[in-house]
Amino acid sequence: MNVPIELRSDNAAGAAPEILAAIGAADVGSALAYGDDLWTAGLQTMVREMFEHPEATVFPVISGTAANSLALAAMCPPWGAVLCHETAHIMQSEGGATSMFSGGAVMRGLTGDEHHLVGAHDVQAAYDATRWGDNHHSQPAVLSLTNPTDFGTIYSPERVAALSAVARARSLRVHMDGARIANAIAALGCTPAELTWRAGVDVFSLGAMKNGSVSTDAIVCFDPAVAAQLHYRLKRAGHVASKMRFQSVQLQAYLRDGLWLRLAAAANRAMAKLAAGLSGLGLQFVDHPDVNMVFVRVDESVIVRMEHSGLFFYRMGPGLIRLVTSFQTTDAEIDDAVARIAAAVAGNDR
Amino acid sequence: MNVPIELRSDNAAGAAPEILAAIGAADVGSALAYGDDLWTAGLQTMVREMFEHPEATVFPVISGTAANSLALAAMCPPWGAVLCHETAHIMQSEGGATSMFSGGAVMRGLTGDEHHLVGAHDVQAAYDATRWGDNHHSQPAVLSLTNPTDFGTIYSPERVAALSAVARARSLRVHMDGARIANAIAALGCTPAELTWRAGVDVFSLGAMKNGSVSTDAIVCFDPAVAAQLHYRLKRAGHVASKMRFQSVQLQAYLRDGLWLRLAAAANRAMAKLAAGLSGLGLQFVDHPDVNMVFVRVDESVIVRMEHSGLFFYRMGPGLIRLVTSFQTTDAEIDDAVARIAAAVAGNDR
Amino acid sequence: MNVPIELRSDNAAGAAPEILAAIGAADVGSALAYGDDLWTAGLQTMVREMFEHPEATVFPVISGTAANSLALAAMCPPWGAVLCHETAHIMQSEGGATSMFSGGAVMRGLTGDEHHLVGAHDVQAAYDATRWGDNHHSQPAVLSLTNPTDFGTIYSPERVAALSAVARARSLRVHMDGARIANAIAALGCTPAELTWRAGVDVFSLGAMKNGSVSTDAIVCFDPAVAAQLHYRLKRAGHVASKMRFQSVQLQAYLRDGLWLRLAAAANRAMAKLAAGLSGLGLQFVDHPDVNMVFVRVDESVIVRMEHSGLFFYRMGPGLIRLVTSFQTTDAEIDDAVARIAAAVAGNDR
Amino acid sequence: MNVPIELRSDNAAGAAPEILAAIGAADVGSALAYGDDLWTAGLQTMVREMFEHPEATVFPVISGTAANSLALAAMCPPWGAVLCHETAHIMQSEGGATSMFSGGAVMRGLTGDEHHLVGAHDVQAAYDATRWGDNHHSQPAVLSLTNPTDFGTIYSPERVAALSAVARARSLRVHMDGARIANAIAALGCTPAELTWRAGVDVFSLGAMKNGSVSTDAIVCFDPAVAAQLHYRLKRAGHVASKMRFQSVQLQAYLRDGLWLRLAAAANRAMAKLAAGLSGLGLQFVDHPDVNMVFVRVDESVIVRMEHSGLFFYRMGPGLIRLVTSFQTTDAEIDDAVARIAAAVAGNDR
Repeated sequence: MNVPIELRSDNAAGAAPEILAAIGAADVGSALAYGDDLWTAGLQTMVREMFEHPEATVFPVISGTAANSLALAAMCPPWGAVLCHETAHIMQSEGGATSMFSGGAVMRGLTGDEHHLVGAHDVQAAYDATRWGDNHHSQPAVLSLTNPTDFGTIYSPERVAALSAVARARSLRVHMDGARIANAIAALGCTPAELTWRAGVDVFSLGAMKNGSVSTDAIVCFDPAVAAQLHYRLKRAGHVASKMRFQSVQLQAYLRDGLWLRLAAAANRAMAKLAAGLSGLGLQFVDHPDVNMVFVRVDESVIVRMEHSGLFFYRMGPGLIRLVTSFQTTDAEIDDAVARIAAAVAGNDR
Repeated sequence: MNVPIELRSDNAAGAAPEILAAIGAADVGSALAYGDDLWTAGLQTMVREMFEHPEATVFPVISGTAANSLALAAMCPPWGAVLCHETAHIMQSEGGATSMFSGGAVMRGLTGDEHHLVGAHDVQAAYDATRWGDNHHSQPAVLSLTNPTDFGTIYSPERVAALSAVARARSLRVHMDGARIANAIAALGCTPAELTWRAGVDVFSLGAMKNGSVSTDAIVCFDPAVAAQLHYRLKRAGHVASKMRFQSVQLQAYLRDGLWLRLAAAANRAMAKLAAGLSGLGLQFVDHPDVNMVFVRVDESVIVRMEHSGLFFYRMGPGLIRLVTSFQTTDAEIDDAVARIAAAVAGNDR
Repeated sequence: MNVPIELRSDNAAGAAPEILAAIGAADVGSALAYGDDLWTAGLQTMVREMFEHPEATVFPVISGTAANSLALAAMCPPWGAVLCHETAHIMQSEGGATSMFSGGAVMRGLTGDEHHLVGAHDVQAAYDATRWGDNHHSQPAVLSLTNPTDFGTIYSPERVAALSAVARARSLRVHMDGARIANAIAALGCTPAELTWRAGVDVFSLGAMKNGSVSTDAIVCFDPAVAAQLHYRLKRAGHVASKMRFQSVQLQAYLRDGLWLRLAAAANRAMAKLAAGLSGLGLQFVDHPDVNMVFVRVDESVIVRMEHSGLFFYRMGPGLIRLVTSFQTTDAEIDDAVARIAAAVAGNDR
Repeated sequence: MNVPIELRSDNAAGAAPEILAAIGAADVGSALAYGDDLWTAGLQTMVREMFEHPEATVFPVISGTAANSLALAAMCPPWGAVLCHETAHIMQSEGGATSMFSGGAVMRGLTGDEHHLVGAHDVQAAYDATRWGDNHHSQPAVLSLTNPTDFGTIYSPERVAALSAVARARSLRVHMDGARIANAIAALGCTPAELTWRAGVDVFSLGAMKNGSVSTDAIVCFDPAVAAQLHYRLKRAGHVASKMRFQSVQLQAYLRDGLWLRLAAAANRAMAKLAAGLSGLGLQFVDHPDVNMVFVRVDESVIVRMEHSGLFFYRMGPGLIRLVTSFQTTDAEIDDAVARIAAAVAGNDR
């Protein structure tokens, strides 16, 4: 029996040691609850510096769903529509959270291109299908981009900027679901500012949970009007932690000295190594794995043998599997995984 | 200059070492996200055993506001009313969270007695003022008791049972805001079951954040129909942590071997010692401090001297202050605090 | 057996002949639905002229609850509070409509004076009790005045202006629930503009249903930002009638040539005559009946004899009844009613 | 210059004389507000008899949007999804009303067949794509059928029954948007019961506004649990008219002696005559016009000439127009319209 190798989700990974240590280090003395503490103030300063934006505001929250849906509710009126890729997590996997928090805003799914990326023409097509100003019809108010996408592909700063320009032409705000944004930044080699506000993003979800955090993701907001709403919206949604210091220090540790990008780069590298191995076996991918995720076409019999070999991964449909690496995936695990897959492809159990 | 002594809120305390250690101990290997892990399963089993109820379900959440408002939204229809003490946290300090999550349910404040406890006659008076079945009028659907109250007084199991009987007579569900329920149980010497479901409570908020937890409170639900709703309501509210294992282990450590009650008892003892000291100084309390909180009447000049002496506490109004102890408050701190207050009363800065 | 005399509510009255006729007169040819018709355009013009405000916008709706709650939802953020008299219809008799439509705004009841009128000190007291900017606490955002009150008393333009000034000092918007506003204007002898926007009112509910309309009340909005929201909020609440022309013509007929004020004056006069008769019998009122409603203290035995005499009225509590006249109440009915009450007081069935 | 002929929408038609007369006839004496009157009681009885269902409950409302969205909110939990055709009015033209009233339920659009009708395989495909019980994913809870569809095609009782069976297999409730249900029943020649509850429909919207009513559509509910919710949901949505008698008598007149079906049959006949004329001109339809609506493919130059000829109709896209007849459309109008279209096709202005 083989040792299991975790390739289901980076969400299944553990905590980064630096983040765990930071929690313990913040357990000194008393500190007022709900963010009125020095650690949270320090995080605010750090975010403004790292993102090179004097009005950036960071709100730690417990989940990516909270980050996305509360930000969108503050960006979109109740009668508005959020434009997003039809496979977007905010549309498919958050249980209607944005509709609930916004008081009835709806999602409008865009088809996107063969890499699951939204293009300017998708947004324009949605505009053309909109009866602007007609109160029978939810009005597009936000463009939300998932970067990286749920298929492991990424938007470059240039592409985000081009889409933001289309959004601005109709006064839409721009949101980025950055559940894995560190992986995108690490892959692109751009600065955090370049992929966000300099490219026209008003608010983004700063994912940390899939990349080493214990109990916090965050909203980062470049628009003070949205931030003013979030001040109230988060509290009444129960998303202002009383022991905020323990949340804030996780994010401080995450962002300090490039830890977040190092962790993401490790996950990306593990995927690159895995992808190279799989390509060598002649396997085909749905998309090139820009970050730490790949969808692979394999015969059903191979899938079964892979499962038997102790590999943990998800089936996405007939003959289609998803493999995800995390910051904890080791070179040895990748070597071992490729060997098991090679055996499975060859028709051998291993 | 004196060392500060923290008496503002138990919410300002740090983490219990056992809970911090448990987080680190759970950082082994990979585990599926969103609660599909062994630690969370273990917590469920532990809660059922400790509360002696085979259908109890526990839902870790990030804040007391989340615990209260999501539970109430699952217990109360959109056209319902929640009966609670007019000073209740759910009515005064949660920013309309229950109205939001429920889709428009309202709070109806009850006057209560001189100890800020709701009595059967308060509930009956609310019933009498209700136009039952009249759709112009929000219909009472839940009775929510805060135990201990925001004034540091407690409901006994007998009093809860009597109130539950009044609630049942009109088919209201019974909710308990137990932000400090460990302090109440420790003070009463009853079992957890006796103060909750055996006394008619359907759902309660299990506070842990004020008593040593790092990032989690919880909802404990004895009603499967409510639990079935919470399964969906929590996710779409962004209150299902992806790294749930790190939340669940905090609650496991909290409940294991009576830690929660020992921590609460320590806070209660610190308050008893403080109250004895203050009584010795001739100071008067609004209520007898049943748990770890006391409201004290003192002259304005005394308050100023107390502040100057490095005591941290809250002013609640002219000549009225609130002092709260936590599990971290030491005997030495209490001795020192009493000495400073004695000096302040005597007219001396210290 | 006597003929019944209707004194329960002006809501039980029928339609004004002019309004009924107007519906029939609008049944000519085809007209686009949802307000894109000439009758609705004509109503907008009429309202702007009558209220002397170039940006006034009128939205016909089917009920006073719709008018109040949708206007308030457009005036108050989800984390806001509406200040109103603790007996206000919006707080007591609309089933949580404002909390629902606003996404969780709450009502904060003010005590008011002995005439059930809110005073500046009531508002100030609510301000003093508010933790401004604290996200734990719903933030006052709207002051709503019911004029006339549910007790038949009225706010003068001067009193409204004084209250609006207090509201403005904290950036609250001012709403008026004018379910019977015609009765107030008729009693005060002021202009419609004087009692509304000139006194600081941003939006008011223009009641018509209790005063001769068949199927429409309306929102009148002097604030274009609120009107822009209402355009969407009404449609998605199902409150944009497809056959809007038949709603708009009712309001045109109602407002044309002073019909609304003549109808209201008739109801007020009937009440004045009734009150004079009751005073002559030595009966006491809770408030002086400024408009068409009076609360009268009478012995239980008298109430029973009044009921037996065929008078229709409401019991409001032990020894307290409410009598309401409408535009349809005749002098003969008042004479007859006074005679029956005189007999009841005298201890005779009649 | 020709006399205009209205073919844009049946919503642009006026009132049926019988319905107008009924409003006037109900203006006798006083009657309690909010439906506590004899006319409304009579309507309830009439609906139960006509629909052959002892528990049917009818709720008059002011618009089809109100009827649909409030019914769906009572049928679907906040975390639920409503399955409907992707072109359904409830999804495309109600401004997110159902998401708002339900507290966040979402719409899931089905592709349907070439006649814009949902098939069992569409529903099954939605089931297959559902992660049942997974709280990340809105759970299908209602199947809503628009009958007739927005393209003028109809579901037979047999087809509804087959779809209901698929719905029942997964415990979905079945809703019918019957904005033009009279046209469907008239065309099918079935009984009202056969197309609704006998075919598995739990609740439907009884459209009347497009077919002669002045100010009321209605919800008809066969499920007492849903009706119990609607009692509260309608009031707090402002959809309980105070002068309910004037709404109820419209529906009484509408349903009495088959008026609704006669009016609908007239509209259907006018369309049949028009369609025959257009077919004679060689024009092609998107679907066969089962009721009173047809989509016709015509060259752009023909469309312009048709517009110049005084025909009122809607452009639906390049080379595609919609023509709708109503109960008021006359034979002479159809003859005239066909003549004008013939001229336009021939290249002549007329």
